[in-house]
Amino acid sequence: MMSTSEKLTLLRKALHEHGIDTFIIPSSGPHLGEDPPDHWQIIKWLTGFTGSAATVVITDSFAGLWTDSRYFLQAERQLAGSGIEFIRPEFNQRTDYLDFICINTPQGGSIGIDGRIFSVTEYRKLEKRIKNRKITVKPDCDLISALWIDRPLLPFSFAFDHNIKFSGKERQAKINEVRDEMRKRSADFHLLTSNDDIMWLLNIRGNDLKYSPLLLSYALVGEEQILLFIDENKIPVNLAAEFDKLGIVMLPYEDLSEITVPVTKRSAVLLNPGTTSINLYKSISKGSGIIEDISIPTRLKARKNKIEIENIGSIMIKDGVALTRLFFWFDSNFGKLRMTENSVSEKLIGFRSEQKDFLEASFATIVAFNENSALPHYKPEEGAEMEIGDRGLLLIDSGGQYLGGTSDITRTIPVGIPSVRQKKDFTLILKGHINLATAKFPHGTMGYQLDTLARSAMWESGLNYSHGTGHGVGLCLNVHEGPQSISPACNRTVIEPGMLTSNEPAIYRDGEYGIRTENLLLCYEDEETEFGKFLKFDTVSLCYIDKSLIDKSLLDQKEIDWLNSYHSEVYNKLSPYLAEEEKLWLRDKTDPL
Amino acid sequence: MMSTSEKLTLLRKALHEHGIDTFIIPSSGPHLGEDPPDHWQIIKWLTGFTGSAATVVITDSFAGLWTDSRYFLQAERQLAGSGIEFIRPEFNQRTDYLDFICINTPQGGSIGIDGRIFSVTEYRKLEKRIKNRKITVKPDCDLISALWIDRPLLPFSFAFDHNIKFSGKERQAKINEVRDEMRKRSADFHLLTSNDDIMWLLNIRGNDLKYSPLLLSYALVGEEQILLFIDENKIPVNLAAEFDKLGIVMLPYEDLSEITVPVTKRSAVLLNPGTTSINLYKSISKGSGIIEDISIPTRLKARKNKIEIENIGSIMIKDGVALTRLFFWFDSNFGKLRMTENSVSEKLIGFRSEQKDFLEASFATIVAFNENSALPHYKPEEGAEMEIGDRGLLLIDSGGQYLGGTSDITRTIPVGIPSVRQKKDFTLILKGHINLATAKFPHGTMGYQLDTLARSAMWESGLNYSHGTGHGVGLCLNVHEGPQSISPACNRTVIEPGMLTSNEPAIYRDGEYGIRTENLLLCYEDEETEFGKFLKFDTVSLCYIDKSLIDKSLLDQKEIDWLNSYHSEVYNKLSPYLAEEEKLWLRDKTDPL
Repeated sequence: MMSTSEKLTLLRKALHEHGIDTFIIPSSGPHLGEDPPDHWQIIKWLTGFTGSAATVVITDSFAGLWTDSRYFLQAERQLAGSGIEFIRPEFNQRTDYLDFICINTPQGGSIGIDGRIFSVTEYRKLEKRIKNRKITVKPDCDLISALWIDRPLLPFSFAFDHNIKFSGKERQAKINEVRDEMRKRSADFHLLTSNDDIMWLLNIRGNDLKYSPLLLSYALVGEEQILLFIDENKIPVNLAAEFDKLGIVMLPYEDLSEITVPVTKRSAVLLNPGTTSINLYKSISKGSGIIEDISIPTRLKARKNKIEIENIGSIMIKDGVALTRLFFWFDSNFGKLRMTENSVSEKLIGFRSEQKDFLEASFATIVAFNENSALPHYKPEEGAEMEIGDRGLLLIDSGGQYLGGTSDITRTIPVGIPSVRQKKDFTLILKGHINLATAKFPHGTMGYQLDTLARSAMWESGLNYSHGTGHGVGLCLNVHEGPQSISPACNRTVIEPGMLTSNEPAIYRDGEYGIRTENLLLCYEDEETEFGKFLKFDTVSLCYIDKSLIDKSLLDQKEIDWLNSYHSEVYNKLSPYLAEEEKLWLRDKTDPL
Repeated sequence: MMSTSEKLTLLRKALHEHGIDTFIIPSSGPHLGEDPPDHWQIIKWLTGFTGSAATVVITDSFAGLWTDSRYFLQAERQLAGSGIEFIRPEFNQRTDYLDFICINTPQGGSIGIDGRIFSVTEYRKLEKRIKNRKITVKPDCDLISALWIDRPLLPFSFAFDHNIKFSGKERQAKINEVRDEMRKRSADFHLLTSNDDIMWLLNIRGNDLKYSPLLLSYALVGEEQILLFIDENKIPVNLAAEFDKLGIVMLPYEDLSEITVPVTKRSAVLLNPGTTSINLYKSISKGSGIIEDISIPTRLKARKNKIEIENIGSIMIKDGVALTRLFFWFDSNFGKLRMTENSVSEKLIGFRSEQKDFLEASFATIVAFNENSALPHYKPEEGAEMEIGDRGLLLIDSGGQYLGGTSDITRTIPVGIPSVRQKKDFTLILKGHINLATAKFPHGTMGYQLDTLARSAMWESGLNYSHGTGHGVGLCLNVHEGPQSISPACNRTVIEPGMLTSNEPAIYRDGEYGIRTENLLLCYEDEETEFGKFLKFDTVSLCYIDKSLIDKSLLDQKEIDWLNSYHSEVYNKLSPYLAEEEKLWLRDKTDPL
């Protein structure tokens, strides 16, 4: 196995041979989402960094990695001694990797990218930044394939039907709905490059990606036909026959050349430049007009239908039961059994696996003890995971993919007696969490207007967290889903009824501990007044929140009432499925504060 | 005097003669701000609409006006029967005047604009929208001058020095600071098209615009020289001599041709495309590179310096005294004197005029009784203003320009006994106002993250207001100033220490009443923790908030404490300047709730 240093040397040799001054490596694959299959995990192969979003820039004298605030501490750790520099932005620093490239690529120099894995949006930013500097971009630089010996193959898994009792809407109905929207936008074709969009549209699932039951695919939706680019060996005969009836034509996944066949100079193709590669975009736009927007399936699937909402309810009970069993096991066995972060993680997967229709974890389970919990996306490394000691905080962020739904939930529990400051931090987070969970807001409100509600209590004490407050959640698709988000970033997506979004404020004290309390929120219509429609959230996740970490004196009566009411709901919904001792234990955990 | 209908007919004739299908009339003048001089108030001349922001579109069969939510009710009233249609957007409707133009201008048709009063930003939006439709834009269509008989001339007033004891920084120091910033941005020249930027930079003021003590001017700042385009007859000899020493060259205001003389193909000009006309932009960009950003003076002047902050303090006392006298006079004379909206307005101007260094009102005083107060920017019309009856709500939004500072403050007072609902509305607004006024937030926070704090209390009751919460305030410049704002709009300007911003939540019940409570907030650094710097606001406006409109049962203890503390400060700061009976009266108004 080559070291990072050896790989870098070879890579720089390739740069030189290709006449490239600066080489940019994104963390995405050709579908431009987070967490591509191993075949496309170039940054992980090259640098050892395992965060899901990063950019690496290589020149003959520099090698650096940029990432977002979820992974700052992780990047520092994983890149230490690798020869790749972690570039941490200064407060409010306006420079990012594009600024670096602009400054450090000589006039008349050239920048190399692999246009298959570089989005149109990012490409335009690059072009704009290098304007007037006589720098060329070479968009077809695959410098990695020749070097990456033993590169993993693309994944293979079988497609299965995501039954109507889970999807709540037939394939044909979804296709019609997408075509209706296309017509409203005057789009003759709609390019889909996000696998989850295609899975949702066709009511199928697969197993190509760890944690997301998707199949690698592209689609071009037209008025009459749908071109589906997928390895047809993945499609069982019955599904293939169904597709045929629906006018879906299957073409090879690895050859997109026929994607331009139906489009003409007079047609308009709707696509999302953020999830379309520059190479694909160039070939399509050569022959037709382009309309740019978030994809129609992304918008439609964000608003869960009635059947989906019912399923979410039953899945949250199953998931809550699994978590309750895990925490009961932990409480009952702590001090008697040796426990490590991994052993707790495995136990939790075990409890979830017992639940009907459970498929797999929805993301790599985070079980983090003490200082490990200060890393928002900590994952115990092989052989390096911590034993659960006798005092501290244990943060567990986990979730499951079930047929028809997905969970994502975080609880932080004390081991031994918590400190005063831990209780204060926990309670400030809880206040923020409740403030967002109980918000009422006019239809038209965007996530960035709600984000502050989760922060204002802790801001009063000079505390903050540097990630967003909430992300959309797909149903048996991607646990992180757009288009909405609840974060300080200017995401102009309106929060709509039916949207499922996480609520996860936190505090991280580097080297000490981190606390996060996360539930999922389902948006619904509350009332209509002369000032418009008003919406609220339903908290759908069901798991007790540890009272021994709460400083009751910091809560007001409304917050205490919310907690007691939530706990009462947790008990009532979960207890029918619990064993007697589990019930008693949960009763105590959910008794009024 | 021609009627609107006659003007429209003539205008349509001109459209036809010039081969124009669609003519766009913005509400701005060549400096592209709000409220241009009368010479440029084309929309007001044509349609009778007096709001400060609008767009009119004329075709041979259509004439319509678009404006923002501040003016919806006003537009409906003022345009009724004019022949110009007020186009009110549907909820969340994505169409605006650009969409209309796109749909209603025939393929191959042409759109006429006067490129002197159309911004680059707006022009680009237009170009983008009409792409692929073979529509031409004719950028040099002045169709108005020939029709507007008796068009007002451009204003004339004399410049005066805005003394260092008011500005806190010498001209040369400001010019150096701007040049430092230009160097950081690699800008050889900086184009200034906003009059307030130029006034601030040169520490001068004038009287060309009603309510803003500015002089019509343009400037091009270079490393060595500044070209100042201004009517030199406005500049007294001593100032002219000063300018000469500082390397400021005066050139005629109405002839910008020499603005391109110093710039070369190798130089870069920094300008703001939102405040630069497309015509000016085209002539400059022909010969040089362009860097686009908010202007440097706009960013620098937003953060008030120590002297300015001290002056704000004393101006708020003077302004508070004037308001207190007005409300005392009102209370003492109501029922004894006939009072109208205008007579109250005049009385208030009178009280402000008594204050040292008062120049003029900072905007048209809003005195609105009962249903008139439901219009956010109501102005009593000549002969149509209302008498103050014996029961209802009186909303007064007023402000003054003083040497060294500016006020903008709104109070709503009851006349007779207020209704339960009026008290509830008033109190929900007050809760929002206090929530924003007492906010603590990390440095890096943007206004749109704070806007919700002013709304969440009223959202709980299904209420909202459709304008922003706060705007920046200039000091003896424009009462509405950027770059920051506190509003749902994605303005990415960070709220910085030294910024002066209004806090004005409200509720408007069409046909009944409106309530608004506005103070100005000065941002300051509070503490620094391991999570960064945290900022807070100081409420600088000083005027009692009417307790008889407060429903105390809706306030929590913190809010009651804030009000009592604020009132105590109001009394302590203003009473030294009040007559005995005024003091007694204010004591009662500011006693603890």
